[in-house]
Amino acid sequence: MRAEIVSVGTELLLGHITDTNASYLAEELSALGIDCYWISQLGDNLERLTDHLRRAWDRSDLIVITGGIGPTEDDLTREAISAVLDEEMVVQPDLEAELRAFFARRDVVMPERNVKQATLIRSAQALDNPVGTAPGWWVERGGRVIVTMPGVPSEMYRMWSNEVLPRLAQQQGGTIILTRILKVLGLGESTVEEMIHPLLHSTNPTIATYAKQDGIHVRVTAKAPDQATATTMLDEFEPGVRAILGSSIYGIDDEALADVVAGLLKARGLSIATAEDYTGGLVAGELSEAAGDRFRGGTVLPVALTPGAMGPIDEQAADLLAQKRARELAVGAMKQWDAELGLAVTAVDVQLSERSRGKRIAIALGHDGDWDEHRRVETTSPVTVRRRAVLYALNLVREALQSEG
Amino acid sequence: MRAEIVSVGTELLLGHITDTNASYLAEELSALGIDCYWISQLGDNLERLTDHLRRAWDRSDLIVITGGIGPTEDDLTREAISAVLDEEMVVQPDLEAELRAFFARRDVVMPERNVKQATLIRSAQALDNPVGTAPGWWVERGGRVIVTMPGVPSEMYRMWSNEVLPRLAQQQGGTIILTRILKVLGLGESTVEEMIHPLLHSTNPTIATYAKQDGIHVRVTAKAPDQATATTMLDEFEPGVRAILGSSIYGIDDEALADVVAGLLKARGLSIATAEDYTGGLVAGELSEAAGDRFRGGTVLPVALTPGAMGPIDEQAADLLAQKRARELAVGAMKQWDAELGLAVTAVDVQLSERSRGKRIAIALGHDGDWDEHRRVETTSPVTVRRRAVLYALNLVREALQSEG
Repeated sequence: MRAEIVSVGTELLLGHITDTNASYLAEELSALGIDCYWISQLGDNLERLTDHLRRAWDRSDLIVITGGIGPTEDDLTREAISAVLDEEMVVQPDLEAELRAFFARRDVVMPERNVKQATLIRSAQALDNPVGTAPGWWVERGGRVIVTMPGVPSEMYRMWSNEVLPRLAQQQGGTIILTRILKVLGLGESTVEEMIHPLLHSTNPTIATYAKQDGIHVRVTAKAPDQATATTMLDEFEPGVRAILGSSIYGIDDEALADVVAGLLKARGLSIATAEDYTGGLVAGELSEAAGDRFRGGTVLPVALTPGAMGPIDEQAADLLAQKRARELAVGAMKQWDAELGLAVTAVDVQLSERSRGKRIAIALGHDGDWDEHRRVETTSPVTVRRRAVLYALNLVREALQSEG
Repeated sequence: MRAEIVSVGTELLLGHITDTNASYLAEELSALGIDCYWISQLGDNLERLTDHLRRAWDRSDLIVITGGIGPTEDDLTREAISAVLDEEMVVQPDLEAELRAFFARRDVVMPERNVKQATLIRSAQALDNPVGTAPGWWVERGGRVIVTMPGVPSEMYRMWSNEVLPRLAQQQGGTIILTRILKVLGLGESTVEEMIHPLLHSTNPTIATYAKQDGIHVRVTAKAPDQATATTMLDEFEPGVRAILGSSIYGIDDEALADVVAGLLKARGLSIATAEDYTGGLVAGELSEAAGDRFRGGTVLPVALTPGAMGPIDEQAADLLAQKRARELAVGAMKQWDAELGLAVTAVDVQLSERSRGKRIAIALGHDGDWDEHRRVETTSPVTVRRRAVLYALNLVREALQSEG
């Protein structure tokens, strides 16, 4: 099955927005084992859009389109498909009634031009859009499929999961496709790939890894005749992955690390306070949002006062200094905010060799006079190192609380 | 002039990365007044890439390609162009010597396959890449142009600015194109557009607005026969924009708001401390990174203790509560951290009408017993509101320090 993705909207050609819809859909297609060979962004121009879709219809079995299905004259995706397939757009009374009801619920008079959102062509079914006015289209003819969805990402994600995935599964021989993402921290992508190598031969479920900002995503995808069977397949496969990656897995699907930590703090009835210089308040920011009253407060100290601020020092000295400072900060935070756990992050500039410098990150978590600690050298850009330091700090809390479990 | 952008790399088709190169280049082309009609992502496949470039060469005057110019067998952009133009790739002794010198400086033996990075076709000139091994190509034939650049964004930005822009200007009748971005906070995009309306008729320089995460970007672009003239044109145009937007303009080009604030603190010899609950350390994070020893420290209080945490209250009560709390926090921060300025951010949940809730954000900046304050109601997603609150807090400091002159 050859697929392609088409994103429609002049704002894409002007660089006003970056096409995150296409990368989302590309990853989804890849997880389904569908080969995507072309991605394109086109403007709100009927001639060029029609020309492009004609070529796509010739060369691809599945065309996934986002954008261009709004009510204005600039929204031309329906018109282009209608031209390519030579099928007339006809207003559907049931869709029109739904559309008018949507506006009525909001006490707004529907502009008449919106009626075009209630049209279909002969080969199209409407895809429900509970959060917007524009239904999508599922067009199926001669074994080939065109899907249209809204360009607004939140509407598109929902329509993709609820409406398109089930039909796609049906079309691919009546199968359901289910995905589960196990999120990993503390191991590099190549290490994770090597570790799960014994599972890579599996064709159903399939397993693949993706490096993301919040760690490595291990994505497991099962195909089955129905939802229950697919769920069972994932449930049976997951323990094998967990046996390999163990406590490096911090969460599933949409679970954020800070939420996992917050859940553990609540479950154990523990409070936490933070002190940080290098991460400048970012660790407090995560916990303050996720942990509610389990987060007691945070202190942000100026980076200018860190021991390494005077210039880089050698690795061993940096390590000692950083560890000492992290522990002092953690103790201070516990006292100042009267919390059971104190979490501190600091960093010291190190001279790694004649020509190379780095950051020695030290994270300390104090509780009951006991310490959990994490130290590492980082050499990439400051933005990346800071972001990683925040993740490692939260992950240290998670590991400490889970191992106590 | 019709342009198109082509991004090459199978990782784009798998959704492993989002194509930010394309949106960067699309914005650049738009600023140059060049119409971009197509953007495409293709994989590392010679047949499909050649087929696509053949069509692009037929329909476009300018093709800007990123990616696929590395040394491996998967890097096929050069080969595809060579096939489309029917011109042979020939190793250039001078490029080969440069390439070998690049490796020698790093004490690494050059893999022999890298030699293909030292090739050109007859119509191509090499584009210098001081930060990587892959030179780009500037291909010009029959008045049409193909540009190839690396896919690594940092290498691409540099090559675009230093190598491609000047040649593009030359090719467009010997003109230089210069851009200046004035960054605005405190006004919505439509307000900014309305205000600068009298300037929109200008064709050289041109002026346009873009809504970005750090405010509204007002982009002014001048075309002139040489750099000095273009600079003068921008210098002469800018005061007209400033006369309209005044102190809403916080910075130029790459200047970040936190850096502007840090510069003002240094110039005035003032120190600052922060206290925040709603923004959970994010304001401290910005200042700690930018302001060095001018940032004295920050306190992060749990959101769970904010006055609105018990449930939303009416707007007037929320406003009073939020203002009182923000001032108390600011005074506390000044005392605790012994700073001349105290900046505080808090938020209270408000019931705006029967069905709608929002956040009443209060920001207070205390100095010398005096107050600058900013309060507003926000109703969008928490992530957006938090990010905006950080910007408004920093902007309040900027306005206060600038008005002090």
